[in-house]
Amino acid sequence: MSGLVSLVGAGPGDPELLTVRAVNRLREADLVLHDALVPAAVLALAGRARLFYVGKRAGRHSIDQDTIHKLMIRAARRGERVVRLKAGDPFVLGRGGEEALALEAAGIPYEIVPGISSAIAAPALAGIPVTHRGLAAGFAVVSGHAESAYAPIVDAIAPGSLTLVVLMGVRTRGAIAARLIARGWPSHTPVAIVFGASQPDSFTWLGRLDSVGEATFETELPAVIVIGEVVSLAHAARKPQAQIAERYA
Amino acid sequence: MSGLVSLVGAGPGDPELLTVRAVNRLREADLVLHDALVPAAVLALAGRARLFYVGKRAGRHSIDQDTIHKLMIRAARRGERVVRLKAGDPFVLGRGGEEALALEAAGIPYEIVPGISSAIAAPALAGIPVTHRGLAAGFAVVSGHAESAYAPIVDAIAPGSLTLVVLMGVRTRGAIAARLIARGWPSHTPVAIVFGASQPDSFTWLGRLDSVGEATFETELPAVIVIGEVVSLAHAARKPQAQIAERYA
Repeated sequence: MSGLVSLVGAGPGDPELLTVRAVNRLREADLVLHDALVPAAVLALAGRARLFYVGKRAGRHSIDQDTIHKLMIRAARRGERVVRLKAGDPFVLGRGGEEALALEAAGIPYEIVPGISSAIAAPALAGIPVTHRGLAAGFAVVSGHAESAYAPIVDAIAPGSLTLVVLMGVRTRGAIAARLIARGWPSHTPVAIVFGASQPDSFTWLGRLDSVGEATFETELPAVIVIGEVVSLAHAARKPQAQIAERYA
Repeated sequence: MSGLVSLVGAGPGDPELLTVRAVNRLREADLVLHDALVPAAVLALAGRARLFYVGKRAGRHSIDQDTIHKLMIRAARRGERVVRLKAGDPFVLGRGGEEALALEAAGIPYEIVPGISSAIAAPALAGIPVTHRGLAAGFAVVSGHAESAYAPIVDAIAPGSLTLVVLMGVRTRGAIAARLIARGWPSHTPVAIVFGASQPDSFTWLGRLDSVGEATFETELPAVIVIGEVVSLAHAARKPQAQIAERYA
């Protein structure tokens, strides 16, 4: 009997923001392969499973992608229930697509369990709707981890036309902001950085495109950058659980 | 004692794709104000609440936005627990931002409970990752309900630069496709329309930009349109629960 691999989104961090199906799959799992950004409180839901860390360490994958595929396939062939647990949603800026293709090619039964993406939830929890009448009719999501990832998207979008959400962009925020300003975005465009959304120590930095590069942060929390006029709503529509440091520079 | 208003995302339709917090809020609710696209199986979770339909009928709001605000505020002032339940995520192309501002202005305690947005989940459940190495480094989400909503975004994005996800666009799909082709998108760009994602009668139509306008559908299921090279993965990485009608025109 073949097992099943579930590609599961863990959401932004708060265990109550997992889906009911994600919780069920974790409880039933024999093996959980998880990334770095999944908090201990979420992993604790996997009561009887072996936990295996397959994330990145200091920017490098501790285990390469092929090995992750082999681990999933081998366990499923032994009849095990495998959860591949990724922060946020498995198909947003992760390698969930590659993992689905590998399982498909190996003939392993698998399913996708979508998760709450921090691309949408992090702004929301800071009181920022990614779309809002009169301010933004749409939004775009991009990875900021490298210039090769963000430059083609940044260059493809007309200045100020939509809300831009950048994941994994804290390190490169100055370069991204400079590129946007060079492309014609107003330097006073509001910017928010939401750190640790949905987690107890969450906080939000508010500023502008021309100040975000110089701001300094002493935190290891995952961060989501939101760029656009909707950020101005963070003041009015702020959430009780988000401690908003109102620091318009 | 003042009550609490929870702006809750109901996800794409399957009750197991609600978050744990959304289920808890529904179970504890005194009053649920819900939209048209929330299925009965989700509403059934609100065991003891009065259910109040505040969605659209035939394109027109049966109840205007101000009245929704008043209903929420009045119930909260009576000390009730109110759930404002929206399909998908409350802050994606809905009016969640306006509702948050109204609650803020009235001094009503409220919280945001993010939901699984069909903008990401519908493609995922059809085997389409919105981002994928070598195919798309980012994605944009827009409403197709009116030209005034989609045209500024469509015109602002360089052809083929990212995955374009259109919600509420089935009626206008021909006009959107024609506009994209006129802007320079290749007419053979793959297009998927995912109907009723996560629901038992879900199905996916596959075609191209130059065929999507002429396709006909006899269904009332909510639909998500995905445009871009990532759609080509729907063949290989298809999900068991998605019945994919492979109709490349």
